[in-house]
Amino acid sequence: MAARRKYFGWGSEGEGLSEDEKAFALETNRARFGRTDFETVAVAKEADIRLAAPRLAPPASLAAICSSDHRDRLTHTYAQSFPDYVHAMAGDFSPAPDIVATPRNEGEVAAVLDWAGGAQASVTIYGGGSSVCGGTEPRIERGQKAAVSLDMRGMGKVVEVDKTSRAALIDGGTYGPALEAQLKPHGVTLRHFPQSFEYSTLGGWIATRSGGHFATLYTHIDDLVESLRIVTPKGLVETRRLPGSGAGPSPDRMFIGSEGILGVITRAWVRLQDRPKFRAGGAVRFKDFFTAARALRAVSQSGLYPANCRILDPQEAKNTGAGDGSFAMMVLAFESGDHDVTPWMARALECCRDHGGDAGEIGGADAHRSGAADRWRTAFIRMPYIREVTLPMGIIDDTFETSITWDRFEAFHDAVKDATAQAVKDVSGQPGNVTCRVTHVYPDGPAPYFSFHALGKHGQLAEQWLAIKSRALDAVIDNGGTVTHHHAVGRDHRPWYDRQRPPLFAEALRAAKKTLDPQGLLNAGVLIDV
Amino acid sequence: MAARRKYFGWGSEGEGLSEDEKAFALETNRARFGRTDFETVAVAKEADIRLAAPRLAPPASLAAICSSDHRDRLTHTYAQSFPDYVHAMAGDFSPAPDIVATPRNEGEVAAVLDWAGGAQASVTIYGGGSSVCGGTEPRIERGQKAAVSLDMRGMGKVVEVDKTSRAALIDGGTYGPALEAQLKPHGVTLRHFPQSFEYSTLGGWIATRSGGHFATLYTHIDDLVESLRIVTPKGLVETRRLPGSGAGPSPDRMFIGSEGILGVITRAWVRLQDRPKFRAGGAVRFKDFFTAARALRAVSQSGLYPANCRILDPQEAKNTGAGDGSFAMMVLAFESGDHDVTPWMARALECCRDHGGDAGEIGGADAHRSGAADRWRTAFIRMPYIREVTLPMGIIDDTFETSITWDRFEAFHDAVKDATAQAVKDVSGQPGNVTCRVTHVYPDGPAPYFSFHALGKHGQLAEQWLAIKSRALDAVIDNGGTVTHHHAVGRDHRPWYDRQRPPLFAEALRAAKKTLDPQGLLNAGVLIDV
Repeated sequence: MAARRKYFGWGSEGEGLSEDEKAFALETNRARFGRTDFETVAVAKEADIRLAAPRLAPPASLAAICSSDHRDRLTHTYAQSFPDYVHAMAGDFSPAPDIVATPRNEGEVAAVLDWAGGAQASVTIYGGGSSVCGGTEPRIERGQKAAVSLDMRGMGKVVEVDKTSRAALIDGGTYGPALEAQLKPHGVTLRHFPQSFEYSTLGGWIATRSGGHFATLYTHIDDLVESLRIVTPKGLVETRRLPGSGAGPSPDRMFIGSEGILGVITRAWVRLQDRPKFRAGGAVRFKDFFTAARALRAVSQSGLYPANCRILDPQEAKNTGAGDGSFAMMVLAFESGDHDVTPWMARALECCRDHGGDAGEIGGADAHRSGAADRWRTAFIRMPYIREVTLPMGIIDDTFETSITWDRFEAFHDAVKDATAQAVKDVSGQPGNVTCRVTHVYPDGPAPYFSFHALGKHGQLAEQWLAIKSRALDAVIDNGGTVTHHHAVGRDHRPWYDRQRPPLFAEALRAAKKTLDPQGLLNAGVLIDV
Repeated sequence: MAARRKYFGWGSEGEGLSEDEKAFALETNRARFGRTDFETVAVAKEADIRLAAPRLAPPASLAAICSSDHRDRLTHTYAQSFPDYVHAMAGDFSPAPDIVATPRNEGEVAAVLDWAGGAQASVTIYGGGSSVCGGTEPRIERGQKAAVSLDMRGMGKVVEVDKTSRAALIDGGTYGPALEAQLKPHGVTLRHFPQSFEYSTLGGWIATRSGGHFATLYTHIDDLVESLRIVTPKGLVETRRLPGSGAGPSPDRMFIGSEGILGVITRAWVRLQDRPKFRAGGAVRFKDFFTAARALRAVSQSGLYPANCRILDPQEAKNTGAGDGSFAMMVLAFESGDHDVTPWMARALECCRDHGGDAGEIGGADAHRSGAADRWRTAFIRMPYIREVTLPMGIIDDTFETSITWDRFEAFHDAVKDATAQAVKDVSGQPGNVTCRVTHVYPDGPAPYFSFHALGKHGQLAEQWLAIKSRALDAVIDNGGTVTHHHAVGRDHRPWYDRQRPPLFAEALRAAKKTLDPQGLLNAGVLIDV
């Protein structure tokens, strides 16, 4: 991670959309909003952004891993949620941490927590800084006097590979590319590729129950965790490395999804895959989204477990350049390090044809890297770079994901899409665009992922976004969905998470936090209040 | 459950080994211990067993569902752990509950908890009464004045079936056979068949993280739980019905495996399977156990996910009548409601042949119901009935199961087997028999299941059993395994569970219990002390 991270936008300096991609985005939005020009504002310049002086200084023993550098404080104020972008664009970095700590080992993590506790400073775990739901913004609460942001990039090693068990012990601060690069010489792979892959860490994936590469079966990182090491303010928790256990409630599952409120995930043993040798895949067209969904249900309940099995509605296919808006699409792929997947693919295609699927673009081993499937894949990877271009134009682009059982899917989809579209219209005064894809799928239901696009007004963008998002999430919760399938709760989703999770579970979780973090140092306001 | 349950032995009155099976068991033990006769004692007769008078009476509103009948109190004193049998054989039922409550709905569960709290009575959740680890014996602690046993058989309905999502809402007290019988008309099945299937309940399976039919992939009930309803002393917890979620730590996972210390699982939505239409299976022979295990590893890491994939060591194969002691065996089967499984079976057999596997008995759809695989299956189902015959002969038969990563498997197996065999010899003064099978398997490791047989001495059986079991579990924990893969912790496994689970996790779990069960009514001494 040698390049400097942006303080506004995705990734590192020098990265972003190409001129062609920018032109495509502009044309798309011109067509979408029926106008040629957009009122465009300038993004605040680094040199013009003022920060208050740091309210605390590190002790000498931690000085080497602590920074109050202006740039470091800027890049650790926000992450990737929509309001983060609005505030950063305007140059408002008021929640900036006083100190950015970058521990190099567990001892230094523990030392930072001890010091922060003594100094009455809050500690916010930045991880890789790719949170899209307000999870990494520093907060100061209940008598706290300063804020420390904990950046995990100093702990980025694959420590041990056990090829026999296909597992590896990996530092929590290991970014996706470094993780795979260190596994590659051993012939194994984690194959967990969230959209944030380049700018998120293993510890962050585990803390947020990240959803990855596999559209079926091993969808979440949860199932890939064999054991954990967590530094809490009260001490180290280390779970036993086990392929399976029935000994009490799973300790791992208490920390998986805990979003940093209980401790810092410093290391994990994770379950690996063999590198794929056999592949089959491509795109299947369907007349409409619900027909594609019925084929998706058949595949999801077949026991075939494709690696990729995602459907896009016609507009979503068009937005990503994979379709022309006249058909829905399934991206379907099997992969294996062990066996030819032809029989698997053949049966999945039968399921698709039973629902009128046109598999013209299904081919052999490389089909997933060509045609519509590849156009979708490229768009997927480039998507995070769009907002830094469209936000200055006053455009509100965002996404939210959920899951729902099959019996309720169609009504749920319509209710959520209609509520979101109506909110876009009410808030912005003109129709926008709401689309849906299904990113992961289970035998008992799909995980729909909605995107919305509205033309907002500078000066009101954060409020307009919140108004749209609120009505969308109201519809999600009212109609039985989950507030998040794999993005996390953070602070942005708290009001709806509070309606989703059982009240007595929240009390039990609060009691667990009180035990492990009695001072309430960690990630205030995330998941629960203390 | 019309027939009366035994107060000593497995299942209901009138059930047990046939004369032929008894003769086989006798011959096996004669050969095992090199003697023709065994000192055999009589089992205490029901009429001779004395119980203290009940220490409390139910309020009028609960009288209809409460019993202090002598027989009811006897059958709810113990379950199926070895010391349970020893005490029952001797007629010592001193921990008998004062009251057996059999609620018919959630309201009555809550009313029993309220009443017990007010009356300072402990509540022990009997479930189906098949615990093999001391989980259901009533206890009285810290000022409690009486003991209530909660029998869930009054809540045994499949409430709702959602065929579209392949899920069903089922009462926690539903026994295996009743559950499958109610699902069958809908063409779906849970296909969770623990050895205790006939005498255990859905709620019990969830509370203990039961391991079932599937040897790979969906091994534990954990993954089949879509949502839960739990009555705690503080009120109802209901989780949302979701195919997948990333919203905070999973609430379900806090209750799955909680062994009744947090509340009573009254209902669950569970994920179902289509009834299998396609099958392939049979038995594969290997020259020895570790060779079979290497083939098992290859199959487990292949991504083929067989429904059955279990290996038996030569002695275990002989003990169950499936082999002659000269070879190890794999029981291998694929099943699907969707597609012909021939390609799956063909590839799995290639993995076996790579390790010298002889698949002479692998056949078509019915092969799993014939030959060695069938002999193993029959022995598996009849096994629970053996102890009531062998214990009066002074024989100590027991099993324990664990899991371990592949890299450590062979050394682990030898250490645990040797420690157990040495303990059998030291305790009983003569060699016994220790065998191993693998009942479930994961890409990162197997779940070995050990059986031991020792000739004990009447009057010392419980102590002898504890001495053997302690040394076996010391070896399991010292060598990195789990104290239980699917039997549960209960009270029998507490000392080793306490060494396995992280101390700070125990503190967090204790805090959660304090929140949900502030008086400590439920299952005292199970998992944690309060």
